[in-house]
Amino acid sequence: MASEHKVTPSVSLYLNAACDLAKEIENAAKANCSSVTVPIVHWNFNREFVREPLRSKHVQFTRSDLLLSSSQWAHKVICRIGDNLDLDSPIDHIRKQAERTIRQEMSFAEHLLQNGYLYTRLTKANCTNFARTVGCVLTRGTLLVEVPLSNPKLTQSNWRRDIGDEEQEEVENPWHWWNNFRMHADGNSVLKVALELTADVPQQNEIYRWLGEPIDAIVLPANIFLTNAKNYPVLSKTHQSLVNLLYRTFGCHFILKANPNDGHIGHYVDYIRHTIQYNYRRDPAQGYEDYLQNPLQPLYDNLDSVTYEVFENDPVKYIFYQNAIEQALLDRVPEDERETKTSIIMVVGGGRGPLVRAALNASKTTNCKVKVYVIEKNPNAIVTLTAHINELWLDGKVELISTDMREFNPPEKADILVSELLGSFGDNELSPECLDGAQKHLKEDGISIPCKSTSYINPCFASKVYNQARTLERNMHSKDRVISSRHMEQVYVAYQKNAFHIDDPQELFEFVHPNRDTDPIDNSRYKTVRFRASIDCVMNGFTGYFDTVLYKDIILSIHPFTHTKGLISWFSMFVPLTEPVQLKKGDEITLHFWRCIATHKVWYEWCLSEPIKTHVHNIDGRGHPIWQ
Amino acid sequence: MASEHKVTPSVSLYLNAACDLAKEIENAAKANCSSVTVPIVHWNFNREFVREPLRSKHVQFTRSDLLLSSSQWAHKVICRIGDNLDLDSPIDHIRKQAERTIRQEMSFAEHLLQNGYLYTRLTKANCTNFARTVGCVLTRGTLLVEVPLSNPKLTQSNWRRDIGDEEQEEVENPWHWWNNFRMHADGNSVLKVALELTADVPQQNEIYRWLGEPIDAIVLPANIFLTNAKNYPVLSKTHQSLVNLLYRTFGCHFILKANPNDGHIGHYVDYIRHTIQYNYRRDPAQGYEDYLQNPLQPLYDNLDSVTYEVFENDPVKYIFYQNAIEQALLDRVPEDERETKTSIIMVVGGGRGPLVRAALNASKTTNCKVKVYVIEKNPNAIVTLTAHINELWLDGKVELISTDMREFNPPEKADILVSELLGSFGDNELSPECLDGAQKHLKEDGISIPCKSTSYINPCFASKVYNQARTLERNMHSKDRVISSRHMEQVYVAYQKNAFHIDDPQELFEFVHPNRDTDPIDNSRYKTVRFRASIDCVMNGFTGYFDTVLYKDIILSIHPFTHTKGLISWFSMFVPLTEPVQLKKGDEITLHFWRCIATHKVWYEWCLSEPIKTHVHNIDGRGHPIWQ
Repeated sequence: MASEHKVTPSVSLYLNAACDLAKEIENAAKANCSSVTVPIVHWNFNREFVREPLRSKHVQFTRSDLLLSSSQWAHKVICRIGDNLDLDSPIDHIRKQAERTIRQEMSFAEHLLQNGYLYTRLTKANCTNFARTVGCVLTRGTLLVEVPLSNPKLTQSNWRRDIGDEEQEEVENPWHWWNNFRMHADGNSVLKVALELTADVPQQNEIYRWLGEPIDAIVLPANIFLTNAKNYPVLSKTHQSLVNLLYRTFGCHFILKANPNDGHIGHYVDYIRHTIQYNYRRDPAQGYEDYLQNPLQPLYDNLDSVTYEVFENDPVKYIFYQNAIEQALLDRVPEDERETKTSIIMVVGGGRGPLVRAALNASKTTNCKVKVYVIEKNPNAIVTLTAHINELWLDGKVELISTDMREFNPPEKADILVSELLGSFGDNELSPECLDGAQKHLKEDGISIPCKSTSYINPCFASKVYNQARTLERNMHSKDRVISSRHMEQVYVAYQKNAFHIDDPQELFEFVHPNRDTDPIDNSRYKTVRFRASIDCVMNGFTGYFDTVLYKDIILSIHPFTHTKGLISWFSMFVPLTEPVQLKKGDEITLHFWRCIATHKVWYEWCLSEPIKTHVHNIDGRGHPIWQ
Repeated sequence: MASEHKVTPSVSLYLNAACDLAKEIENAAKANCSSVTVPIVHWNFNREFVREPLRSKHVQFTRSDLLLSSSQWAHKVICRIGDNLDLDSPIDHIRKQAERTIRQEMSFAEHLLQNGYLYTRLTKANCTNFARTVGCVLTRGTLLVEVPLSNPKLTQSNWRRDIGDEEQEEVENPWHWWNNFRMHADGNSVLKVALELTADVPQQNEIYRWLGEPIDAIVLPANIFLTNAKNYPVLSKTHQSLVNLLYRTFGCHFILKANPNDGHIGHYVDYIRHTIQYNYRRDPAQGYEDYLQNPLQPLYDNLDSVTYEVFENDPVKYIFYQNAIEQALLDRVPEDERETKTSIIMVVGGGRGPLVRAALNASKTTNCKVKVYVIEKNPNAIVTLTAHINELWLDGKVELISTDMREFNPPEKADILVSELLGSFGDNELSPECLDGAQKHLKEDGISIPCKSTSYINPCFASKVYNQARTLERNMHSKDRVISSRHMEQVYVAYQKNAFHIDDPQELFEFVHPNRDTDPIDNSRYKTVRFRASIDCVMNGFTGYFDTVLYKDIILSIHPFTHTKGLISWFSMFVPLTEPVQLKKGDEITLHFWRCIATHKVWYEWCLSEPIKTHVHNIDGRGHPIWQ
């Protein structure tokens, strides 16, 4: 179970106070801690507050910045602000004093570290003024916001016999504290969660809900560690799997809250590293996590060499295609005709030839004779295909037709039409339009591989991809809040790890090939799908998937319940909502989804009618047209 | 009770079909109807549908546009589209056929009338696809959307004995139909309501809820008319007052649904005109209704002559000021000293002199001697003031100090400080900052007129002002949906008639003058106020008001419950929310409101924490700073 690649998670030591900062950093380093988390102010200094314009004389309110180099400030210290301040006190002068105090700390923090880490703590749901004063204002660096995984009151009341079971239910989940803070701060991407693990571990859907949030650090207090037989600190199985789930999702840092004087800091750190390293498994799609991409438009743009290479490297896709072609050949050609009868295979959208290779392989393994026409419009891929024909596929079985598949005119009709025109949402690269055009060259009883594709969708909360879409609009140097259809009414492709899936996927649109249904064929669609929230949460979009039947039971799928093992060619879709929607447990979600068609483009439109009514997104494809 | 100004509401005659359009228009005109409301298509013609690209040959599907001149099409005909179509049919081919049909009608309508009136009808809540196909797409002219005031099912079930009382409750108010349509269409300002009156009149708050919607026409079916003793059609008292309420609010048109063959059309039209004219009273603020204005910033900008004139023409404001100064003089100067003791009055922000005039009048009526210092920074107003001193106020009682009131240095301290620095929201023209600066020139026991100002606020739905704010951002030629803080995080002034007030106003901020409280004086504020929705509705902002105590019981107020009679100097404020919030009956609304201060500016911030959490609006005054 050893990991192929070694990972070394960083651990910061949380100190209640630091008298001699340089020395504390040194001590922490000896115990393998890469930094210390300390209050930005030193309690030895007095504080005084002034209103603008500044008074003539300030007092020194904390240690000098010259104590450390700016690189040390940035990398060795996580500066804590707002310790013991109540910015939402109902008492006016306490609140105002807290505002002045934290503004002074933020100002000094900005002086010390341009893009470093700040740290603060949420202790209650009523944090509107805190969010406004701190969360809305920061624009650089990262503010870690400590939130406990379960409400401290819950732990208390578990031990108290004077409280009935009914009262216990009232204890608010601290996710709500963070949710309030985040919503008021408009999802400011500078804000990240430092999730403090607690002795109590909540229910699974409460944990999953955190997977959509921007978690950057896990806070481990010493009191959740157990002591093993050799007297070393270890975590319970439950805590271990939780820590590993969070690390796999977020690759987060650790912050250790332990008494630096007990001499065991090094043991805690070693244990944390050990459990992560032991359970770590490299993700084949590493590096793509939650990175927002525009879907390909291969019909409109010519794909480049890098893109072809990525797809060709998929370890399972072309094996499945080969299997499907084999099956189709075996079904179509009776055993006694295999040496005489030549099956016509047309590969529409040949790219650099992987499907041709699959067809030739299938011919070889089944002993069926084939003639392969490969149709490709990209002049750059044609270079590769021509080279293959001249150098590799010398027996004349392969013929290249360099044209758009919707316009080509082959000399004979096909037994099997093979294509790989599917996008992450199935039809979003316009396979229906392409195959409807190509199917006139298929024999009456011919086979299309794939023969069916289906899209699926489910509601989600995905802070990272959503924030990327939002940020696309913003001018870095402007404080303006601008939300436009150019970015919020477009569908994206992303390898979504940082996501909470609110309900299971539902089937959306289905396309069958060849399509002998109607004339003219109508590929427009409209469907209403319903979901339910099983927990209070926020929804900021939908995740889309597809599966496709290549032939009979040979299926490729990125649907989470049936995902083809090893398949990496497709990430899921992300369909954003312009504004996040706040859901209560039990809320019905009704999504309306359209596939629309005009002369030169295809596009999706979507809106909600429950629990609230939203505007129709991407009207007339204004945000995201798919060009035909 | 005769009206001063005659109004002539226009009435359009609704026809189920029109065989000979020109003749129908002629007949309608004879009965004083200014137009006819007819289906855009003629049922004599066949319809056929094509997909893009267009087929080679179209059939003629309706009458020719040459039948009328383009001016007649625009002014004499309201074209009905979508008659008997179900765009939200669960049956796919019915829905698709309906889409094609209505698209053909819309296309022809656009051909006929560039900016004219279209008309369609809502018959159910499930209208998502209708909203998308029609409501989202139109960008020119006006689409009247007919909605009945009460659900036809309700009327039916009132007459049926087989339905119990409980079931009756389930009948949906047609406002929801319109609300769904409007929300999905993103409040497209091309869409207007044609509210059809029904025999049943709903409860008052259901009627008031309509006052926030964009009503453009009232549809009067013949069956709600009664017959009076002389056999003429009349409306019941309830319907009369409803019609007049709607006409006062919207100045709307009428559409009459009556049988053109019964020969009484003219009597209906005459009656409608009569009841409107009889009840009409000219609004002194006519022309300003729901017109969005930026609040004045008199401290930063110099007011112009027109603005001064508007304010000086207020019929009651300066009388109240004169009364207040009289009272203050009488209270401060014992009767036996009135001929000897000179009271010092300082008018801070003199403008063109109305408060000087009030002070001089007060001196005359009370026989108290006064010396008036008038402080003014606007060089253009100083021209007027100097002229007054040289030509009118010749006795040397008035001395002009031309400087900013925060910097002036008068030769003596004042008994009475008089100012009129208040905005529609009380402090929003920075009266606290100005008066705090000026109060050092007030004697220890001196009086400030005004001595107190208080702001008030309540949640509202106001479609017209909200749509204006939204439209400020949009490029007319772009289909992009852009929402930015530049326009949606600013407070506006508007004479709001087209508004539904969701709950009563609550007190927000209070400022007292002179302010002897603290040093330094802190004029920042933060308050949380709570409201409740008594009905399902939408909230798109808040309405702000103020009142001010000039002296003792002499109060100026624009608070709706205490509005000073005849006062027209101030309209209310409109504080928008970036996105409308959909409320359920009984929902709590919690508004957080801040008054923030920095060196050179003052600004408000606001957000909701219930029923949903919104981002904090106008952070750092990004949308709307008030310059000091």
